[in-house]
Amino acid sequence: MKERIKAAVIGASGYSGEELVRLLLNHPQAELVAVTSRQNAGQTVAQVFPKFASHPVSRTLRFVEPNAEALAKEADVVFLALPHGVAAEFAVPLLRGGCTVIDLSADFRLKSAARYQEFYAHEHPAPALLEEAVYGLPEVHRQAIRKATLIASPGCYPTSILLPLIPLLRAGLIQRDGLIANSLSGVSGAGRKAEIGFLFCECNESMRPYGVPKHRHLSEIEEQLSLAAGSEVTIQFVPHLIPVNRGILTTLYTMPVTPVRTAEQGVRLAEQVAGCYAAAYGREPFVRLLEGSALPDTKNVVGTNVVEMAWRLDPRTGRLLVMSAEDNIVKGASGQAVQSMNLRFGFPETAGLV
Amino acid sequence: MKERIKAAVIGASGYSGEELVRLLLNHPQAELVAVTSRQNAGQTVAQVFPKFASHPVSRTLRFVEPNAEALAKEADVVFLALPHGVAAEFAVPLLRGGCTVIDLSADFRLKSAARYQEFYAHEHPAPALLEEAVYGLPEVHRQAIRKATLIASPGCYPTSILLPLIPLLRAGLIQRDGLIANSLSGVSGAGRKAEIGFLFCECNESMRPYGVPKHRHLSEIEEQLSLAAGSEVTIQFVPHLIPVNRGILTTLYTMPVTPVRTAEQGVRLAEQVAGCYAAAYGREPFVRLLEGSALPDTKNVVGTNVVEMAWRLDPRTGRLLVMSAEDNIVKGASGQAVQSMNLRFGFPETAGLV
Amino acid sequence: MKERIKAAVIGASGYSGEELVRLLLNHPQAELVAVTSRQNAGQTVAQVFPKFASHPVSRTLRFVEPNAEALAKEADVVFLALPHGVAAEFAVPLLRGGCTVIDLSADFRLKSAARYQEFYAHEHPAPALLEEAVYGLPEVHRQAIRKATLIASPGCYPTSILLPLIPLLRAGLIQRDGLIANSLSGVSGAGRKAEIGFLFCECNESMRPYGVPKHRHLSEIEEQLSLAAGSEVTIQFVPHLIPVNRGILTTLYTMPVTPVRTAEQGVRLAEQVAGCYAAAYGREPFVRLLEGSALPDTKNVVGTNVVEMAWRLDPRTGRLLVMSAEDNIVKGASGQAVQSMNLRFGFPETAGLV
Amino acid sequence: MKERIKAAVIGASGYSGEELVRLLLNHPQAELVAVTSRQNAGQTVAQVFPKFASHPVSRTLRFVEPNAEALAKEADVVFLALPHGVAAEFAVPLLRGGCTVIDLSADFRLKSAARYQEFYAHEHPAPALLEEAVYGLPEVHRQAIRKATLIASPGCYPTSILLPLIPLLRAGLIQRDGLIANSLSGVSGAGRKAEIGFLFCECNESMRPYGVPKHRHLSEIEEQLSLAAGSEVTIQFVPHLIPVNRGILTTLYTMPVTPVRTAEQGVRLAEQVAGCYAAAYGREPFVRLLEGSALPDTKNVVGTNVVEMAWRLDPRTGRLLVMSAEDNIVKGASGQAVQSMNLRFGFPETAGLV
Repeated sequence: MKERIKAAVIGASGYSGEELVRLLLNHPQAELVAVTSRQNAGQTVAQVFPKFASHPVSRTLRFVEPNAEALAKEADVVFLALPHGVAAEFAVPLLRGGCTVIDLSADFRLKSAARYQEFYAHEHPAPALLEEAVYGLPEVHRQAIRKATLIASPGCYPTSILLPLIPLLRAGLIQRDGLIANSLSGVSGAGRKAEIGFLFCECNESMRPYGVPKHRHLSEIEEQLSLAAGSEVTIQFVPHLIPVNRGILTTLYTMPVTPVRTAEQGVRLAEQVAGCYAAAYGREPFVRLLEGSALPDTKNVVGTNVVEMAWRLDPRTGRLLVMSAEDNIVKGASGQAVQSMNLRFGFPETAGLV
Repeated sequence: MKERIKAAVIGASGYSGEELVRLLLNHPQAELVAVTSRQNAGQTVAQVFPKFASHPVSRTLRFVEPNAEALAKEADVVFLALPHGVAAEFAVPLLRGGCTVIDLSADFRLKSAARYQEFYAHEHPAPALLEEAVYGLPEVHRQAIRKATLIASPGCYPTSILLPLIPLLRAGLIQRDGLIANSLSGVSGAGRKAEIGFLFCECNESMRPYGVPKHRHLSEIEEQLSLAAGSEVTIQFVPHLIPVNRGILTTLYTMPVTPVRTAEQGVRLAEQVAGCYAAAYGREPFVRLLEGSALPDTKNVVGTNVVEMAWRLDPRTGRLLVMSAEDNIVKGASGQAVQSMNLRFGFPETAGLV
Repeated sequence: MKERIKAAVIGASGYSGEELVRLLLNHPQAELVAVTSRQNAGQTVAQVFPKFASHPVSRTLRFVEPNAEALAKEADVVFLALPHGVAAEFAVPLLRGGCTVIDLSADFRLKSAARYQEFYAHEHPAPALLEEAVYGLPEVHRQAIRKATLIASPGCYPTSILLPLIPLLRAGLIQRDGLIANSLSGVSGAGRKAEIGFLFCECNESMRPYGVPKHRHLSEIEEQLSLAAGSEVTIQFVPHLIPVNRGILTTLYTMPVTPVRTAEQGVRLAEQVAGCYAAAYGREPFVRLLEGSALPDTKNVVGTNVVEMAWRLDPRTGRLLVMSAEDNIVKGASGQAVQSMNLRFGFPETAGLV
Repeated sequence: MKERIKAAVIGASGYSGEELVRLLLNHPQAELVAVTSRQNAGQTVAQVFPKFASHPVSRTLRFVEPNAEALAKEADVVFLALPHGVAAEFAVPLLRGGCTVIDLSADFRLKSAARYQEFYAHEHPAPALLEEAVYGLPEVHRQAIRKATLIASPGCYPTSILLPLIPLLRAGLIQRDGLIANSLSGVSGAGRKAEIGFLFCECNESMRPYGVPKHRHLSEIEEQLSLAAGSEVTIQFVPHLIPVNRGILTTLYTMPVTPVRTAEQGVRLAEQVAGCYAAAYGREPFVRLLEGSALPDTKNVVGTNVVEMAWRLDPRTGRLLVMSAEDNIVKGASGQAVQSMNLRFGFPETAGLV
């Protein structure tokens, strides 16, 4: 481990890329040495992102055309903030060149190339790497991330669904059948792409579901849930587009294994759930278990790497409801990727993230 | 039936009251003769709502203090846009005075005073009227509304949940157990009340659940669903507050009675669902069944009395998902109340609403 | 004049075009017979704009490729909701074919082809038509519009600036020098174009000036002001982009001809200004002169064809401030165009607009 | 100067107070020892502001009732985030107790008690302190702030107006007459007060001027401009309310002393303006002079203590336009107050602010 590592971001002009630039510019143990973007090549970071202009590096560091071989020599860690399919093409030469690769796309999140093809509608570009890739959800795969060279950083929706569900499934507190995740996302989740559907006037004063009933993120959600449950898990997932810049709010509908017919059963189960979450997340720096009457609100997590969670038992229906809130670009993307970098390079896990 | 009826609005300074004023000012067969508001008494409608100033009546009609006896003499129909508990106090003398009362509060939506007390935390102020009150959902109770003198106009969430579910339950296509309604509401649903939680900066860039797990609207939702199903129905309902002015987007998770394990079963069920909705709503002026790949979007219904609906069968989970969008203040409140008025007085059902 | 005229919209898929479709579908004396859009050709109006699906015509009328010759035969009036430069190409054959043309682009708003070239950076495509074109601001050019065959409907900013200033200049109450117009516009003003700068996340939580110091609309603003003043007027104009869908709010800084050094002078000038506006707009159906302490607010005019205005004399600076609010797509574009159509065809001026 | 000072915030539940809490919790050389709020007394900072819960101090520090005497013993510096009038009542005992007081209200911003009474409509509660108070605009009064015990932190609008204008007035480049400031503010500027006018639905999709023509902030703006110009300056100021949470965007209309009739004159003046700003702000950590075609955008400064500025000469009108953007709660309030604290206690000026 070196004192200060050199980091590069490929695809630094999108929302996740921009957030990576912000986090890395301010990271105490990383030095941002390269940012790539075809459309912005030649411009400084400060020119493309005036809000970073106060940082001296932003005024000298210039965007370049992406070149994996060159970056492999320059950087210890390379973040891929690219569309799926494209990311894998860069990962291969970067890994060959000795870099640690942290991929924010979906390319290495699944173990099965067939499942990838089912959900992403094209052949996997580098199936040989799927085995060694580690799913970069630190609260779940911390040890593996420490030793990984290829980290597949999770999607924004999956993070908001997996963190609440995995402890409950591992503890056998909820049924594996009938899980439902209803998610709301800010518009930055669609990326910085010039599409009419994401214009201000098309999103403002609008609420709409999309990707019903088979959104791509289902593939990694179900793979990770199945891993936690020890058997195949299927989940219903409906995402919605909401007119906020940032944030994901997920409401999860689960059925406890033990019925909650009496008040006593309810009290006992509540203790088990509370105990389960306390054991799983009581010391996690980036999971906030809400207390009392508080419920998650994206405005309390926007700009941070924190997932906020609360749960309620409903004696009328017997269900356990769990709600989570996160910033889709930080904990749901770039912050989590930096958290993985911290683990991988032996830095304090919260370095550059608080 | 008279040519042109006289209408009054009690509580005309809130969002539903304001929308009633707008609709009644422009109604071809109603004359707005009185509007009440304690805080605005003495001011003209145009002074309180500058946007109505183009309408000549708005410049002469003045807000008055609410006085049921006086209004009973003046008006044929009185709309109550008041908080629950308060509405019932006005309904009694108005009905005694011979008016038709259309109540937008929750006071007369339930048949059981006990259930009212359970959900609204105070004794019902006029239980004797519960029997005669008609639940003002025209697509479901059209005939009864035509003969009613006390119409309990439905809540905003219930409308968005009942219209999609009732035909399916009546047709026996979905199971009565395990229903889930996940709803998103614009901030106008909270009313024009000076509360910190609904300030611009508290709602903007925020998404949050509330009223979990037992929101008050559950009482009327379950009563109406049970009526449709012919037996007791319990539903899970989680509302969320979203930074838009208007609109409700509801996503419903249901389980078909017939399993959908094969493609054939799916096709057959899809035909049944399509047929069920076509029969129920194919000629309804205010229900829009979306076709093809279209999904509901609140921006397509805001300002109108239309509920937009789409559904999807998910072969992976066997569930039938139904999504609906409405304007919470129009179809979810004031537009629907005017629709009931039209029925009650023998006007074309769409009068003043298109 | 025919009972019911046939109308067509070329370029009906943008925001102004969509609003024209809405207004014409509901117009009592017009029949929408054709809508064109290259990208939507073949689809019905209801498919492209689900919110119009309640209107029967929307389910049968299909978008077609634009063809001026064919449209000239089919329609009495054709609205051009096209980019500048393109509009003129359609106007020529349409006029030749005997249609009345109402152009919402900038192509025929100026009398001078040279000035057009200065501001729009290309040669004028049909300079011969500039002479006969009438600037379609009904409150100012009503008589000419009645007899026009080519109506150049004003820009959104110009409308919000010209209506407040022209009566004052005509009356000689304010100086022609030193005029300043500070305008705020909703994002729909940028059109339905897939550009990154107008994505939700780029506009939301953002306020920014643009087009400083020489926005294109200056050309028509100054031409019309000069006409009203009887001599050359130069104005300072700074537009800003604001995260609302619709609306323009303009604040005008003017200097009275008579100084306002004493309270008496102030009272006298206030009477003159009030009198001037009452004379100019007291009977105008679409200009609302606010009274008392009321100031313009775009939320009071959105969705309507009304311009709201208020003014204040500032004894500290001697200035007369005038503020106006309008819906940029209605009074600032499509509503005003329909208002001109009403004049041109002898319909009540407010037909289809209230 | 001590290693680490103890800081308290009186009125910590408003937007400025909350931001002070955030900045002080994360300040390397300050310890937040007390926060007061009548309505939240007894609760921890983490309970009132869940988003700060990740900071350990937030879980132990509890809100208390405000008590100046007790706070004077506990803290080295006390921030007053209180309404005008109330702030002065606390300042007196705190100063007597030996604290440094940084007041975010208007109470000590003016030198003249008469002018205070003219603009704030009540007698000044502590006129004897006006003399010793220092106007806390670091870029202008840095030396005085270093030695002050009572710092009157500037208003949000004044900051956005004074920073652009003062260097130009000091350099004699612009005329003192005829200045105009057109400002746009996010809704947080109205404070966390339960008033109907600031509800989400009243502000969203709305743009409106207010406080026309004599807003209270004019008093301090003109006092500071006059100081810079060396003679009495009067300015026209119109603020507008815009639906964003945070940010002020100000557009300033000024007239150069030297006319700009020829291109040469323009070039010369442009050099002078550029030189003037470079000299004034080239090394300021919190003023960003934009280059090239960039114009200020509040989204680039929100959450930071930076004021972004750009200017344009308009050869058509001879005017010099200057535009600025800031976060009204950071540079316009709490960040600037912490900047003053840094100066006062000899910390690096940017401590806790980058």
